Amino acid sequence: MQQVYINQLSDYAGEEVTLRGWLYNMRSSGKLLFPQLRDGTGVVQCVVFKKGVSEELWDSLKNLGQESALSVHGTVRPDERAPGGFELDVNGAQVFQAVEGFPITPKEHGTEFLMDHRHLWLRSRRQHAILKVRHTVVNAVRDFLNHDGFTLCDAPVLTPAACEGTTTLFEVDYFDDEKAYLTQSGQLYNEATAAALGKVYCFGPTFRAERSKTRRHLTEFWMVEPEMSFATLDDVMDLCERFLSHIAARVLDERGEELKVLERDRSKLESVVPPFPRLPYDEAVKILQEGHERGELENRFEWGGDFGAPDEAYISSRYDRPLMVHRYPAAVKAFYMARDPERSDLALGVDVLAPEGYGEVIGGGERATSLEYLEEQLTAHELPREAFEWYLDLRRYGSVPHAGFGMGIERCVAWMCGIEHVRETIPFPRMLYRIRP
Amino acid sequence: MQQVYINQLSDYAGEEVTLRGWLYNMRSSGKLLFPQLRDGTGVVQCVVFKKGVSEELWDSLKNLGQESALSVHGTVRPDERAPGGFELDVNGAQVFQAVEGFPITPKEHGTEFLMDHRHLWLRSRRQHAILKVRHTVVNAVRDFLNHDGFTLCDAPVLTPAACEGTTTLFEVDYFDDEKAYLTQSGQLYNEATAAALGKVYCFGPTFRAERSKTRRHLTEFWMVEPEMSFATLDDVMDLCERFLSHIAARVLDERGEELKVLERDRSKLESVVPPFPRLPYDEAVKILQEGHERGELENRFEWGGDFGAPDEAYISSRYDRPLMVHRYPAAVKAFYMARDPERSDLALGVDVLAPEGYGEVIGGGERATSLEYLEEQLTAHELPREAFEWYLDLRRYGSVPHAGFGMGIERCVAWMCGIEHVRETIPFPRMLYRIRP
Repeated sequence: MQQVYINQLSDYAGEEVTLRGWLYNMRSSGKLLFPQLRDGTGVVQCVVFKKGVSEELWDSLKNLGQESALSVHGTVRPDERAPGGFELDVNGAQVFQAVEGFPITPKEHGTEFLMDHRHLWLRSRRQHAILKVRHTVVNAVRDFLNHDGFTLCDAPVLTPAACEGTTTLFEVDYFDDEKAYLTQSGQLYNEATAAALGKVYCFGPTFRAERSKTRRHLTEFWMVEPEMSFATLDDVMDLCERFLSHIAARVLDERGEELKVLERDRSKLESVVPPFPRLPYDEAVKILQEGHERGELENRFEWGGDFGAPDEAYISSRYDRPLMVHRYPAAVKAFYMARDPERSDLALGVDVLAPEGYGEVIGGGERATSLEYLEEQLTAHELPREAFEWYLDLRRYGSVPHAGFGMGIERCVAWMCGIEHVRETIPFPRMLYRIRP
Repeated sequence: MQQVYINQLSDYAGEEVTLRGWLYNMRSSGKLLFPQLRDGTGVVQCVVFKKGVSEELWDSLKNLGQESALSVHGTVRPDERAPGGFELDVNGAQVFQAVEGFPITPKEHGTEFLMDHRHLWLRSRRQHAILKVRHTVVNAVRDFLNHDGFTLCDAPVLTPAACEGTTTLFEVDYFDDEKAYLTQSGQLYNEATAAALGKVYCFGPTFRAERSKTRRHLTEFWMVEPEMSFATLDDVMDLCERFLSHIAARVLDERGEELKVLERDRSKLESVVPPFPRLPYDEAVKILQEGHERGELENRFEWGGDFGAPDEAYISSRYDRPLMVHRYPAAVKAFYMARDPERSDLALGVDVLAPEGYGEVIGGGERATSLEYLEEQLTAHELPREAFEWYLDLRRYGSVPHAGFGMGIERCVAWMCGIEHVRETIPFPRMLYRIRP
């Protein structure tokens, strides 16, 4: 008998097959049992007639608890009312493990309880849908960059120095009392590999030791960072447009079923198409200040700061697609950003704000090319010069205009799924008070 | 004028184009300059006639040092003798940065010097070739698993407990004096996600704090780990065969030029096709002991141990393709391995030894399904029970036969490239005395 997966049933209509999986749910009605089986590729309703199986099997099946492991064999029967279009008329089964007391039941559980049982929570239909969307987002990112001529160059996790500021570093005991730090960004390493290979990206876990408990922060998160030699801020904005619209299109194309489970409004993703609005920071500040005057924003935003979550939500709510805010005050941006030649107090940076209040998903821009400028910036930011000597070499030997960005995968997945909190977008989230399971 | 990349020149024969890149090398001959330009996609020889450009430009070009950054424009001229089939007849150029004293010259440098200058060493043709092969290996891995129905489920880097033994852990200061450890393997997390999604893989950096200085060890390395529910040791061996032969075929297909640069014997990769020989550990021991008796191996190998590098090289040299050694003594394998029901002193594990002395590239096998057995093993291995409670839940709730493997990417890339040491297979290697640059 054919051993198949639930998502292959349409190829076996009328045939006998064997499915293997876990009991998702069970209804019974006198001489009928309706076990729902899940196998990771889908859920199918099975039908067991008391007369169709041995008495022994009937008895072993009728009291099976949620998440019991079993294989069932039977005939695939098309049924328009069934969620996947098919049911299985069972004529035999084998129980691998009968389970009692699976901790996560259809009733409501508190978030802490679910997070403590994350290894089991992952078996629910909603979590499946989110992880499948994550799978598609990650592959869309990689396929897009590979087809666009970027070479993957993994950046190291263990680094000798900070990149995005020294206060949010996790410290590691390396060998012989040496200290290392978990990477906050592959940015600086990307600049080295971009000078070698032209267009590169890194894509791996990054870390921020922030004591922050918002719905948008994890201490460990995955980030993709493309970097292009001979590129400018405008090139980065063009890339952001093509990149995000490719991701949204792939999710729409491959994850229709999952978006239904998540009750995601597809039209929100369908509008993610170029061109994205491009708004100078100065203009964004005006909009925020006018919003405050009209009483639509509680606090008045002053020129010079970084936007808070309410500010980002307010500006981006004016658009149906991602908003690119560019040319920020240099003082609030990283030391390596290039200055605007027409306004030296501005950095040639861009933040891409996702619509629907999802806030910043991408940060990027053009990098400073001048050795002298970067030397000054290291001093001004009180960064240890010695640890950056290798980075300064990139300005000594063949310095060219270059630019790139970083996108946090979990924020992008939360946005695609239309869910509230990034903690559900990664199999095992790490947060301020959470490194288990 | 068209802005193009060197690997696109064949589309522009006879046309005027602009290239941007770095000076790789320069010859001159009286009234001619032959600058070689590299742009990350390739290297092309340019030809500058003194009479063809302004005197000012001639003067600025003729003394340019290695790795100077420039754009050149001119006409693409087919030339059969040229490495890429084309040369560029230059009629203009712009120098972004004239460089003097690039530290890495065509002369021989010592390994320590090159490793200290890794950020610049990456610009050499050999390093390009290796990184391009790495790019292809990583994408071949992902494409294979995605097309085979596996779902990506990233495992966490920050973990509360050891997986592969407690002596080789890097310790991290988490918050409020809590300790975390850098992951050694995503294995245990994979078992949770496989019970949720059937067939899964994780693929990320992993860490081993080993004080080892061999040519096959890094402290930070990338590992891909597929895991399958309802699968056995035999299923893992079948998967290894299809997986490794797919990777070798992709490298042969996409990286012909790079394999030439590396002087790789293609026939060694062409023979990586199923079936791979499957050798029980017991038989491997016999072969090793006979080899010792014949004087071909210095030390006599005794049943019960793990193979050393000379042992692996000796056995695998008998075959032209990867060798799968299976059913090892359980005592030398991880606590979670299933026992052979026919020989309880053996674990249902497999190591895949690459040919040509490259040694173990894959380790995997079937996992124990019994709660009681795993509880005993945790005690026997002196592992902290409390930290594994969540893992034991996987045996309480729907335990099924499952199996998988892990492959270290750097060892695979070294083998594909035919190079000696894994340190060249990752952009920024981390080793016992090396966390810089």
